[in-house]
Amino acid sequence: MSLQASNEDPPRRTAFFLSDGTGITVENFGRSLLTQFETVKFAQQSLRFVSTVERAREVRRKINETAVFDGVRPLVFSTLVKPEVQAEIKNSNALFLDIFATFISPLEEELGCISSVSTGRFHGLHNVDEYSSRIEAVDFTLNHDDGSTTRHLDEADVILIGISRSGKTPTCLYLSLQYGIRAANFPITEDDLERPNLPRSLLAYKDKLVALSTEPDRLHRIREARYPNSRYSSLNQCQFEVRQAEALYRKMRIPCLKTTMKSIEEIAATIVDLAELDLGRGRGPGRSRAHV
Amino acid sequence: MSLQASNEDPPRRTAFFLSDGTGITVENFGRSLLTQFETVKFAQQSLRFVSTVERAREVRRKINETAVFDGVRPLVFSTLVKPEVQAEIKNSNALFLDIFATFISPLEEELGCISSVSTGRFHGLHNVDEYSSRIEAVDFTLNHDDGSTTRHLDEADVILIGISRSGKTPTCLYLSLQYGIRAANFPITEDDLERPNLPRSLLAYKDKLVALSTEPDRLHRIREARYPNSRYSSLNQCQFEVRQAEALYRKMRIPCLKTTMKSIEEIAATIVDLAELDLGRGRGPGRSRAHV
Repeated sequence: MSLQASNEDPPRRTAFFLSDGTGITVENFGRSLLTQFETVKFAQQSLRFVSTVERAREVRRKINETAVFDGVRPLVFSTLVKPEVQAEIKNSNALFLDIFATFISPLEEELGCISSVSTGRFHGLHNVDEYSSRIEAVDFTLNHDDGSTTRHLDEADVILIGISRSGKTPTCLYLSLQYGIRAANFPITEDDLERPNLPRSLLAYKDKLVALSTEPDRLHRIREARYPNSRYSSLNQCQFEVRQAEALYRKMRIPCLKTTMKSIEEIAATIVDLAELDLGRGRGPGRSRAHV
Repeated sequence: MSLQASNEDPPRRTAFFLSDGTGITVENFGRSLLTQFETVKFAQQSLRFVSTVERAREVRRKINETAVFDGVRPLVFSTLVKPEVQAEIKNSNALFLDIFATFISPLEEELGCISSVSTGRFHGLHNVDEYSSRIEAVDFTLNHDDGSTTRHLDEADVILIGISRSGKTPTCLYLSLQYGIRAANFPITEDDLERPNLPRSLLAYKDKLVALSTEPDRLHRIREARYPNSRYSSLNQCQFEVRQAEALYRKMRIPCLKTTMKSIEEIAATIVDLAELDLGRGRGPGRSRAHV
């Protein structure tokens, strides 16, 4: 391996995420690993659907060119499973990390059986019921966005409430897309805050409610981006609404999640945990929530 | 390790996904591995936010109880990073797979630096801009669902078209939530099919169009679930629409994705690849599409 010296210090490292499928597993996993190295600058590239030897040869060329260009060999995170495809990539000038194979053999030993080495199985549509239930959950969530209807609310797995721009909609969509959860959401309006009480239509579903809240500063910035210099977006108004809303949630004993500095994934995972909604995509018997 | 004999053969194995964060990385990765073992029945359980020794002790108890109940020790996939938390779990009666540590040391060697062992970094909201751009993408997608408006279509990264129930909406939502892509969608109606031509408002954006199509049989089943015994859901009508629509896409040279037997993730990843939309969540310089 000949490394061309780079002018800069430290050099930028390129990381490739290779898979014969969607690349979602290897991307998520590889990125999680790279975030542990804060001092290194990474250029990250997903190469998906690498399932033929021809494609693998193109990818090898790409990797080798990158090694020359960067002046240092790239990192390759791989979930490739076909030996002949893998062989092409292993011949490239890179640190090859086979994130699948590493665990397959201890698992085979433990389980006493041989794994099926198949292509992109996990994200494939092997279970039509699972697909349908996620699509139904998305439909449900879209139909029950922002309090648009109170019909069939009894079918909701969870109902998020919160003041305007507290993050209800994206969280609900993530819950339905990722977990197949029927997530409705309902706005808490100024009227609700002044009484103060929950919207009447929600009183019957108190056990399904989870509130989202955020810091007034952050809310102010988010609203300001939409309606600059309005009463709605003023810091004063945001402070008022957040304070009143949180008091209301406390009074009604509704669990409240502070979403400031949390990603959509974190908020959603917390709700799944909180509301004991761990139905999961499989909805199988073993996927019920763990009560530890 | 004493294993209690099970009556059934083969025994069900329990797999735990442990993390000190959302658990998304370890869940995705662990499930991908388990799908390689088709003959084994797995019960899968995510235990999230395991970040204190107290919580780790509860989890250890849970694991040990499961080992007794199952009659065979569970599998534990872990992205736990705190040594004291990990130590508790390693003492449990399970096959412990530390999916992070395995790769950290070859990476440290390659990169010539020490990793920061931090808790749940990846899915944390470290980049407010990234969060905002995903939220904006979701807003855009919701505002441009099902042809609801032609305003600002020039700002779309991609515009999905397809006949009713071909999977446009969930795919668009996944594109915006997962990748921060502004994805609009537009229905192809019977009027469009009879002329046959694209909706006029889309002609200016031909380069952004990607069509979704599916098998008439499957479409028939999906529509039937919504409007049973209708003309809309009849197999005849579905066959007609699919045939006409695909002919239209060919005539207009619009790339068309057959979504039958594909998961939302696969469809979305294919579109990202196809439309060279690999902006990614980072939207950094190295995240542009790889032209191999």
